Amino acid sequence: MPNPTDATDSTDTETNPEASTTDADEFTVTPYAVSGEVDYEKLLERFGATSLTDDQLDRFPDHPMIRRRTFYAGRDVNEYLEAAESDDPHAIVTGRGPSGPMHLGHVLSLYLARRFQRETGTTVYVPLSDDEKYLAKDQSFASIGGHTRDNLRDVLAVGFDPENTRIVIDTADADVIYPIAVRLANYLTPATVEAVYGQQDTVGLQFYPAVQATHLLLPQLVAGRQPTLVPIAVDQDPHVRVCRDVAAKESLPVEKPGALLGRFLPSLEGPGKMSSSGDAPSIELTDDPETVAATVNEHAYTGGRATLEEHREKGGDPSVDIPFQYLRFFFEEDDAALERIAQRYRAGELLSGDLKELAIDRITDFLAAHQRRRDALGELEDELEPFRLANAERCRALERAGVPSVSGRVR
Amino acid sequence: MPNPTDATDSTDTETNPEASTTDADEFTVTPYAVSGEVDYEKLLERFGATSLTDDQLDRFPDHPMIRRRTFYAGRDVNEYLEAAESDDPHAIVTGRGPSGPMHLGHVLSLYLARRFQRETGTTVYVPLSDDEKYLAKDQSFASIGGHTRDNLRDVLAVGFDPENTRIVIDTADADVIYPIAVRLANYLTPATVEAVYGQQDTVGLQFYPAVQATHLLLPQLVAGRQPTLVPIAVDQDPHVRVCRDVAAKESLPVEKPGALLGRFLPSLEGPGKMSSSGDAPSIELTDDPETVAATVNEHAYTGGRATLEEHREKGGDPSVDIPFQYLRFFFEEDDAALERIAQRYRAGELLSGDLKELAIDRITDFLAAHQRRRDALGELEDELEPFRLANAERCRALERAGVPSVSGRVR
Repeated sequence: MPNPTDATDSTDTETNPEASTTDADEFTVTPYAVSGEVDYEKLLERFGATSLTDDQLDRFPDHPMIRRRTFYAGRDVNEYLEAAESDDPHAIVTGRGPSGPMHLGHVLSLYLARRFQRETGTTVYVPLSDDEKYLAKDQSFASIGGHTRDNLRDVLAVGFDPENTRIVIDTADADVIYPIAVRLANYLTPATVEAVYGQQDTVGLQFYPAVQATHLLLPQLVAGRQPTLVPIAVDQDPHVRVCRDVAAKESLPVEKPGALLGRFLPSLEGPGKMSSSGDAPSIELTDDPETVAATVNEHAYTGGRATLEEHREKGGDPSVDIPFQYLRFFFEEDDAALERIAQRYRAGELLSGDLKELAIDRITDFLAAHQRRRDALGELEDELEPFRLANAERCRALERAGVPSVSGRVR
Repeated sequence: MPNPTDATDSTDTETNPEASTTDADEFTVTPYAVSGEVDYEKLLERFGATSLTDDQLDRFPDHPMIRRRTFYAGRDVNEYLEAAESDDPHAIVTGRGPSGPMHLGHVLSLYLARRFQRETGTTVYVPLSDDEKYLAKDQSFASIGGHTRDNLRDVLAVGFDPENTRIVIDTADADVIYPIAVRLANYLTPATVEAVYGQQDTVGLQFYPAVQATHLLLPQLVAGRQPTLVPIAVDQDPHVRVCRDVAAKESLPVEKPGALLGRFLPSLEGPGKMSSSGDAPSIELTDDPETVAATVNEHAYTGGRATLEEHREKGGDPSVDIPFQYLRFFFEEDDAALERIAQRYRAGELLSGDLKELAIDRITDFLAAHQRRRDALGELEDELEPFRLANAERCRALERAGVPSVSGRVR
């Protein structure tokens, strides 16, 4: 699963000219390409998803990414909310493609999922698609494996409840992932996959959408029919739709997975840079405070004026100011406090340097807590164990998927 | 792996008009279609394989299928023979697609492999492609799973040495099969797969050639570089070539797998019926003597004359007589005895009914021994266990394939 709300994963693979695009003078959004100015409402029309209503926003656990409509739309959101409100089983699937170190943007939706889990007991599945990253990137499995182990420590550092959380690694959990993917692949034609993902270079990538569909259905296959929500950047919605189509065609005991569709987290260098490559400057989860400060101070695009005098007179523009956007997206939870910052910036009372400092402080605090938990982890194998699918869960998933174990047991 | 020397598996799926064929007035041989009269020498030219030399025939363990050139050609056969002669590691891969009960023709190459194993200590790998059969046939996984369990009993009844034999089931051994297949899939383009296998209906079948390549490389990945021979009907040669191409491109510690290419075992109803569907009458491994006799007497195409008088006068034609062909292929090991039968048939001394009776006797004896061993088997799980890949073997295969376990162990 590409990471929701992070533009990097969507854009650091080659833009595929075969993928479904719109008129050249419009914007382009496919799972592998984002370019132009994104009209988020038009996207919903095109994808056939619906904006979140005020009522829906209120019913979600409180979190700035919901309240401020970073996640602004969805599919089958009501089913999820009803289950969450009535203590019925409900799940979130939010994954990671382990092709490199995790950046700040990569963990935000994991922390959102943790919030949901703490408030309503949501089951959280975190699939790591090391198979897809091996196939899509010019890296050896050894390299992908190194990133996977490193990323796993970051996922574990988020602090999920092992009772309600399963971390799945495509190669390491192939005993359950592959047979189910084969089952689902029977409903995935080459034409469907090409329409959504574009032409692929290898038969491995042609098959991968079946693995991704497996990720999204896994909570239900393990624990029974339940609303499943996939928080995901809006450009990844086609992935969810492919899985929904498969789920609908299937005689499987599952509901179509729902989606919580998000805006793109702007890159540090500003909204116009969103389609830049993975080499764009970014804040890594292992950065120390000095590095965070240097990165923000050097690279963050601001909404400030050219001169101090002009800024004091005309004020700054928080809507394009990246430090402000970081506060708005995630790091300043208090709406009133955020609004005061915006007002004082617009009034020229706060300078761009002040906003940078605010953002640096908040990000640094966040990273310090994350790093503290990460450093406190023991051996990866030991820490991971309680989050892996138990043998009984594997057997149940295979049985529910209609792929009973030939040998009478999962290895 | 489709079963070698058996025409049924090659022809009971839809003929794919997209697959590589020759002029319409010639014969057609692809992995999914056999039609027309097959010119076995021309096939070699087309595929770029070479006929077995007399010297090579002599160096193989003695077996009628070798001696009488049912297996008549190959690739990299010398490497295999040299290893067999010098007690170096060498392997055979001969699989089964578990889409139904196994027929007589399906086990012949397994018995050939057993002979090789007994004479030179050959390692034998028997992959069961339940994933491919689910995808290619209109059957549920439950149905394929039932056939798999049934077929496994027949494979076990052959009497392989568990020390030197591994039985692999694609879904049950997905923990090792899938990651390696992903590794190999990186070298398999959609164009290559389409050229060899034709257009596929699902992304599962598009991916399957990577799984098949995994089967053929598995003995070397588990136990190190060694000549591997794949006894296979000549129409399946493209499968081996796909794997050879992948092995050559790879930085994997493997030799290209070799091939031992066979003629088609004619169907009971005669050579002209070779392209008939899977519903053709056939001898099943569970048939009792009466059923075998009834099937042969009712369906076997003979080389006899229209009337007894004409037969006595002009003699029969053993070259088209199916009961004689059964004796020649497998069931009469003694060349002199076989030649006497042919002479007496040509001379009109033996009638078609006599040849039928001879074949029925031999087949009945063979099946009685097979069934005795099959019936003596205990619980499938227990019998299968010594033939499954051990955990250390799985880890070694993944490591050699460059897909080290992320979690530090195979589940």
